Amino acid sequence: MEFNATEHQHIRYNPLRGDWVLISPHRLQRPWSGKVDSLQEELLENDPKNPLSPGATRPNGAVNPHYESTYVFNNDFPALLQEVPEPDVDSGDPLFKIAGAKGSCRVLCFHPKSNITIPLMTVQEIKRIIDKWCEELQELGKHFTWVQIFENKGDQMGCSNPHPHCQIWSSSFLPNEPKLKDSNQKAYWQKYKSVMLLDYINRELERKERLVEFNDSWVCLVPYWAIWPFETMLLPRRHILRLTDLTEDERISLADIMKKLTIRYDNLFCTSFPYSMGWHGAPTGSLTSEDNSHWQLHAIYYPPLLRSATIRKFMVGYEMLAQPQRDLTAEQAADRLRSVSLTHYKFQS
Amino acid sequence: MEFNATEHQHIRYNPLRGDWVLISPHRLQRPWSGKVDSLQEELLENDPKNPLSPGATRPNGAVNPHYESTYVFNNDFPALLQEVPEPDVDSGDPLFKIAGAKGSCRVLCFHPKSNITIPLMTVQEIKRIIDKWCEELQELGKHFTWVQIFENKGDQMGCSNPHPHCQIWSSSFLPNEPKLKDSNQKAYWQKYKSVMLLDYINRELERKERLVEFNDSWVCLVPYWAIWPFETMLLPRRHILRLTDLTEDERISLADIMKKLTIRYDNLFCTSFPYSMGWHGAPTGSLTSEDNSHWQLHAIYYPPLLRSATIRKFMVGYEMLAQPQRDLTAEQAADRLRSVSLTHYKFQS
Ligand SMILES: O=P(O)(O)O[C@H]1O[C@H](CO)[C@@H](O)[C@H](O)[C@H]1O
Ligand SMILES: O=P(O)(O)O[C@H]1O[C@H](CO)[C@@H](O)[C@H](O)[C@H]1O
Repeated sequence: MEFNATEHQHIRYNPLRGDWVLISPHRLQRPWSGKVDSLQEELLENDPKNPLSPGATRPNGAVNPHYESTYVFNNDFPALLQEVPEPDVDSGDPLFKIAGAKGSCRVLCFHPKSNITIPLMTVQEIKRIIDKWCEELQELGKHFTWVQIFENKGDQMGCSNPHPHCQIWSSSFLPNEPKLKDSNQKAYWQKYKSVMLLDYINRELERKERLVEFNDSWVCLVPYWAIWPFETMLLPRRHILRLTDLTEDERISLADIMKKLTIRYDNLFCTSFPYSMGWHGAPTGSLTSEDNSHWQLHAIYYPPLLRSATIRKFMVGYEMLAQPQRDLTAEQAADRLRSVSLTHYKFQS
Repeated sequence: MEFNATEHQHIRYNPLRGDWVLISPHRLQRPWSGKVDSLQEELLENDPKNPLSPGATRPNGAVNPHYESTYVFNNDFPALLQEVPEPDVDSGDPLFKIAGAKGSCRVLCFHPKSNITIPLMTVQEIKRIIDKWCEELQELGKHFTWVQIFENKGDQMGCSNPHPHCQIWSSSFLPNEPKLKDSNQKAYWQKYKSVMLLDYINRELERKERLVEFNDSWVCLVPYWAIWPFETMLLPRRHILRLTDLTEDERISLADIMKKLTIRYDNLFCTSFPYSMGWHGAPTGSLTSEDNSHWQLHAIYYPPLLRSATIRKFMVGYEMLAQPQRDLTAEQAADRLRSVSLTHYKFQS
């Protein structure tokens, strides 16, 4: 028998993280009697009790303005504070290493309505979110080494409030994930004298089998090494280090491709598709002035659903202790995402 | 103000993985309006429809024997098969690296009763599970480079069948996690001429603040660099490379400490405590004959609960894209685990 990646188990390498994923396409047939999630409730358009709504009072007593577009504020219960005492200098014990951490956590409300999501917004509304991302990165990037913009969407992804919003956590340290990507992209750059992710996009645009959407400035694809069933990556087609380097036109076409991708997501299982997404680009703060040419800006979407709106892929046991495992191949996932309609299911008759 | 690890955010280094965790102890006060899980249903002692029960018919038509202790069989829907075609030799493209993967997946039923769990078993019953682990490792370790023994417990941990069981996935490749631990333990061994985890245990036995349980042969502690709220590590006190090297007495005292740890877990939130747990020791197969002296056997427990039986810690957004974050410190977690009773809540009057 000849090897066929759509049928036969194999492992694939993730050059950005320097590790591997196990692909077992034959495993989709397995019966499921595990956890079935309940569907999320429909939300009110304006829930004055939701602490993220315009005019609402937050748990700490602060009152939101009656905002009409986006709204940014400092998280009332931040995981990272700006002013904290730092631990003493290193004891030198390699088994008990500790270091100081400073930072800030902000919340960015996407829209005044509680029951709207990106696929249901206009391109102009999405563009305003992108503009805010750029503004925040511009400001926070002056002070912090890393500014992590991320959105947790849906209660299956641990989102603690359903009002459409993202978070921006900045830190004085370079976190694990960007550190890993920094060193792998740098090694590639030194070895091949070109940008890893630009080489990657070019090959994917030729091969086409993992593409989901593209336009003049952006590509959206299921990476060859994807872990989550419908994981995607969104990248600018030209060499761009950070969100703040995007032109006005590139921001508009980013809004457009984000809308299309998330409509495809929602249509896949006819549900408001949960995910964690976020942006990775060249570091900021004191690292801004270093040579970061090996970096290419990209967004990653990690959606948990596998079989339906209520059946997730669980990254547990083997995945936590040994190595991520996926059931369908990246090519199959891209194919399914391409095959759904670009009209949102709520507007289909 | 002086730095106090119980109050002030900081980062800690994990020498086994070579990465960092963010600790934000002040964050426990944050209100929660996110996902609240439903409680797992009480199970029947003997559910003949459960495919893991003695005498039951499995989805593929196989019939289980009327087993009275443990029972091992090959997974009917394995993620790893033993006989599969392999991909062609490496194309040399660093962005599309693929490799063959062979393996096997077994299921080990712990007990004939569906409604029993490790904390409710006798030490003798747990000892029989440990004996099976050793037998399986002995046999599978002849053929495979890595034998991953792991238990997913509870539907919150994606366990697809509530009958008490674990899984044993063997592979021709060394997966990411053990590969990382192998190289970090080896580097320590080369630099300090001693075993990382033995040095670690000795320091923890002196400091005591992270200990949960110990006896003559074993230590159970919340590692300094723990990620999950109540994560623990279970290690033999003498230098042991693999489960198969344990003496008869060490297996009995392992059964005893496993029972104590899991009773503490259940008592913490008065619930059958969910977790993924598994064993890491020196590699096997063709790697058995290499110098593995830098390895120390250990089990890891990753439980998801944070606040109660129904409120989990979600490792999403920031954790997936940047770095793991925890709310309470390792010392606080150990303290809480030490402070609960050693009588299981079901037997308390
Ligand atoms: O084998 P099970 O219990 O059906 O499945 C569970 O454990 C596996 C190994 O950790 C995971 O790959 C699955 O996602 C999870 O649902
Ligand atoms: O900030 P939230 O939405 O309350 O909390 C959520 O996102 C955070 C950042 O990814 C995580 O640390 C929390 O575990 C998760 O529940």
